[in-house]
Amino acid sequence: MERLETFPNPKIGRPYTITHINPEFTSMCPKTGLPDFATIEVEYIPDQLCLELKSLKYYFLEFRNKGIFYEAVTNLILDELVEACQPQQMTITAHWGARGGISSIIEAKYSKE
Amino acid sequence: MERLETFPNPKIGRPYTITHINPEFTSMCPKTGLPDFATIEVEYIPDQLCLELKSLKYYFLEFRNKGIFYEAVTNLILDELVEACQPQQMTITAHWGARGGISSIIEAKYSKE
Amino acid sequence: MERLETFPNPKIGRPYTITHINPEFTSMCPKTGLPDFATIEVEYIPDQLCLELKSLKYYFLEFRNKGIFYEAVTNLILDELVEACQPQQMTITAHWGARGGISSIIEAKYSKE
Amino acid sequence: MERLETFPNPKIGRPYTITHINPEFTSMCPKTGLPDFATIEVEYIPDQLCLELKSLKYYFLEFRNKGIFYEAVTNLILDELVEACQPQQMTITAHWGARGGISSIIEAKYSKE
Amino acid sequence: MERLETFPNPKIGRPYTITHINPEFTSMCPKTGLPDFATIEVEYIPDQLCLELKSLKYYFLEFRNKGIFYEAVTNLILDELVEACQPQQMTITAHWGARGGISSIIEAKYSKE
Amino acid sequence: MERLETFPNPKIGRPYTITHINPEFTSMCPKTGLPDFATIEVEYIPDQLCLELKSLKYYFLEFRNKGIFYEAVTNLILDELVEACQPQQMTITAHWGARGGISSIIEAKYSKE
Amino acid sequence: MERLETFPNPKIGRPYTITHINPEFTSMCPKTGLPDFATIEVEYIPDQLCLELKSLKYYFLEFRNKGIFYEAVTNLILDELVEACQPQQMTITAHWGARGGISSIIEAKYSKE
Amino acid sequence: MERLETFPNPKIGRPYTITHINPEFTSMCPKTGLPDFATIEVEYIPDQLCLELKSLKYYFLEFRNKGIFYEAVTNLILDELVEACQPQQMTITAHWGARGGISSIIEAKYSKE
Amino acid sequence: MERLETFPNPKIGRPYTITHINPEFTSMCPKTGLPDFATIEVEYIPDQLCLELKSLKYYFLEFRNKGIFYEAVTNLILDELVEACQPQQMTITAHWGARGGISSIIEAKYSKE
Amino acid sequence: MERLETFPNPKIGRPYTITHINPEFTSMCPKTGLPDFATIEVEYIPDQLCLELKSLKYYFLEFRNKGIFYEAVTNLILDELVEACQPQQMTITAHWGARGGISSIIEAKYSKE
Repeated sequence: MERLETFPNPKIGRPYTITHINPEFTSMCPKTGLPDFATIEVEYIPDQLCLELKSLKYYFLEFRNKGIFYEAVTNLILDELVEACQPQQMTITAHWGARGGISSIIEAKYSKE
Repeated sequence: MERLETFPNPKIGRPYTITHINPEFTSMCPKTGLPDFATIEVEYIPDQLCLELKSLKYYFLEFRNKGIFYEAVTNLILDELVEACQPQQMTITAHWGARGGISSIIEAKYSKE
Repeated sequence: MERLETFPNPKIGRPYTITHINPEFTSMCPKTGLPDFATIEVEYIPDQLCLELKSLKYYFLEFRNKGIFYEAVTNLILDELVEACQPQQMTITAHWGARGGISSIIEAKYSKE
Repeated sequence: MERLETFPNPKIGRPYTITHINPEFTSMCPKTGLPDFATIEVEYIPDQLCLELKSLKYYFLEFRNKGIFYEAVTNLILDELVEACQPQQMTITAHWGARGGISSIIEAKYSKE
Repeated sequence: MERLETFPNPKIGRPYTITHINPEFTSMCPKTGLPDFATIEVEYIPDQLCLELKSLKYYFLEFRNKGIFYEAVTNLILDELVEACQPQQMTITAHWGARGGISSIIEAKYSKE
Repeated sequence: MERLETFPNPKIGRPYTITHINPEFTSMCPKTGLPDFATIEVEYIPDQLCLELKSLKYYFLEFRNKGIFYEAVTNLILDELVEACQPQQMTITAHWGARGGISSIIEAKYSKE
Repeated sequence: MERLETFPNPKIGRPYTITHINPEFTSMCPKTGLPDFATIEVEYIPDQLCLELKSLKYYFLEFRNKGIFYEAVTNLILDELVEACQPQQMTITAHWGARGGISSIIEAKYSKE
Repeated sequence: MERLETFPNPKIGRPYTITHINPEFTSMCPKTGLPDFATIEVEYIPDQLCLELKSLKYYFLEFRNKGIFYEAVTNLILDELVEACQPQQMTITAHWGARGGISSIIEAKYSKE
Repeated sequence: MERLETFPNPKIGRPYTITHINPEFTSMCPKTGLPDFATIEVEYIPDQLCLELKSLKYYFLEFRNKGIFYEAVTNLILDELVEACQPQQMTITAHWGARGGISSIIEAKYSKE
Repeated sequence: MERLETFPNPKIGRPYTITHINPEFTSMCPKTGLPDFATIEVEYIPDQLCLELKSLKYYFLEFRNKGIFYEAVTNLILDELVEACQPQQMTITAHWGARGGISSIIEAKYSKE
């Protein structure tokens, strides 16, 4: 079984947009070992495959005790989800809670050709 | 009587926009049998015909006990409403309540050539 | 006296935008005889004439006991206001309260050549 | 297995409050056959037993295709949840979506003598 | 048939609260002839009878073209609804839109002995 | 004609509450000569008389160019409105815009015996 | 001393945007003599000069007892501020409180060349 | 060093209230192994000791990978914080994110005699 | 001149409430040397004296570079303002921005007698 | 050690956006000596380097007791952050609290090339 499961796009040929919003993402800061909290949005235009929602949830859980910086984790999620479903376009947006009084947003986009 | 009734566009020739918002849409997940809840927006530019509001309401009620996935139902509604009123353009947006902590939005568009 | 009074645009030559928002519009459904409620926005770029606010208010009151559908009334208001002040551009947006659980927005635009 | 499962209160003797909020409750109007939608809040002070969350969810699903009026369903839920967990106090609040332009709230309370 | 229909309270003996909220109430100012708009809330503890929602809706429609002041209409609605369903307690709250820049709220309560 | 007109309470004997909210009150600071802006709320339980809304509006306009401090103007309005309509109870609440970064609220109450 | 003081742009050559928002603007209606209230936004790209904030505040105060219509005052402010600081671009937006139940927004733009 | 550090109350004798709000609490469901997310509020009236904020933060982190139910964890936090600072009163409120579409709030109070 | 100036209460004998809200308070953490930010509310019932607003503003500025803990500064402000104006009652509420992801509220009250 | 530390962009070649939001910025007005408060947003597309969050926080603290005008400080922050990390694009937006009743927003952009 795939770590990130997919299913066939039920409407191949029509470019439409799918957005999944996870307000309960958490990972660890590799420098301080303290947890980071984010809301992650995945917005994509599917090509042949759609992301299966339950396996997406379990995929996000893998980061719970992983030490990784804001910029790196946002780009890593984009890379791995693009690899899994080969979309026409995908955008990952991560809204991170305040650290030292400063909150952060990282947004990365992929576009097939 | 048509399942999805229409009436003649009262202002043919002027491209204007009609939006209907239904915050009380519900269907069933075909895998778990659990109900899904969504707010559905129908935005379109009519050509010769407009969608009759009451029959649109009854159309949405047909999904109450139907097992169908998020992506499929959004595209199906677009296909059936386009077929019923042959608009110049139409967009269906479905905002689904959280499942496994993740909420989803599906948006599909149609444009007459 | 005109039904819809106007006054000379105080700044002819500069294209600027005037918006009037009426949250207390009501008309009647011609089918059920039940009242409909809407917020009406009038946004326009004046040419030689501006709409006088008080006569606009009285104009809206004329619809209180008139039976007319959503799509028709929005387009009719646009036609009559365009005729009254001959603007460069005008947009009418009507946000209707929920009927059968479904709320509606109708938006119609006029542009002088 | 009980239809409404419970588990032993982990802190017997301290009166504390548990609230469960379900924004996705739906039942049917027995007169029109049309669906009703509500947000149901269950607030209680447990005595010996707490309501198990998953069985509470399945309990709410039983109403999906049941014809029952606002006032009756709110009181019925109170009766059945009180019977299941015998709390010191319980309040059921149901916020119903608009019907004919009018939204409704029903609130019923139980208190063990 | 009664102008304000009622039905038997399904849970006589338990004091519980029913609230109906109508955001689309309109009447006329007897001095100026201009329409007034209000949100009316009816909150009551039923005794033997509950107010039937549809007839309540039609009751509110009777005020559409009636000339009556804020204070009078709020108290009149309280009197007539109390007479219709003989509740243990009832509160009518009317939130009126701004007139001359000033918005108003009238709240009247009834309590059976 | 009275400066602050009144009309007979249409429901003498029932203690009910009338609230008028004016978001466009302005007076002058007597020390700096700069304008102050406030939202004024008048909440009262009438006895024999109610405040007439239009004369209340003109009463508020008298303060436009009057130099008077926050605390004084709030108490003065309470004194003058109490004198005009002799209510059972009255509360004046004034929410003042920020001066030097600090916003202020003054609330004064009157109760007949 | 100038009525509208300016100071040298500290970053000539970089096109950047300055916005000043005054929620406490008031003028008089020339027809009724009643006060009007607005929130005024001044957004501009400076060229050689920036508007000094304190003199801008005193400039707005000049309108307190001046009789002038919505459309005229918005355009007049644009003309006078453009003359004072000769910006690359400037937009004045005025949000006026409701009159006769209708609120208004006037937006006027200037662009050098 | 104590696990939950305290410092002497700087104003012994005056009953005042301290509230700490942590929107980034997470623990694990002992049944499913899935993470739970909550906002935890600690409100207390100190007696001789106040809770040190940094050690409170580290205390909350201990729950990150601990399997414990909603009701149990809320009461456990109350027990351990009461033991640490011996307050006059303390309330713990936990707002849990939705599980199966149902969100929950647990509130437990302690009062010294 | 007093550090905290006062003026005679213009309505001695009527117990009324004055609230001043300062969203721009800042002091320093004595342990880390990092700045803390708070919104401070001062609510009091004056006796013979009222707090002069401008000197209150300057009083708050004194804390800008002072190292002092949350609990201590809130109580100190209460002590010094009570001493300055000898009110019948006073409440100081300080809402502190998040530190380590945890925000805090301190509320202290004084009552004469 | 650099005053503004950076770290290597973990995804060179993909243009993505990083936003840091600091709601607790404060500097001093050089004319009055009074403090100014702002929310500062830094949005940039990194090239080879990313801004390290902790050193960014300490960089903002340097302004606490520095006398500098709104327009100057916004442009200075842009200049210094661009110099530190040499981004492809950067925008600084500063939202300043009200002074004399007028709040201000300054937005400056940099683009390589």
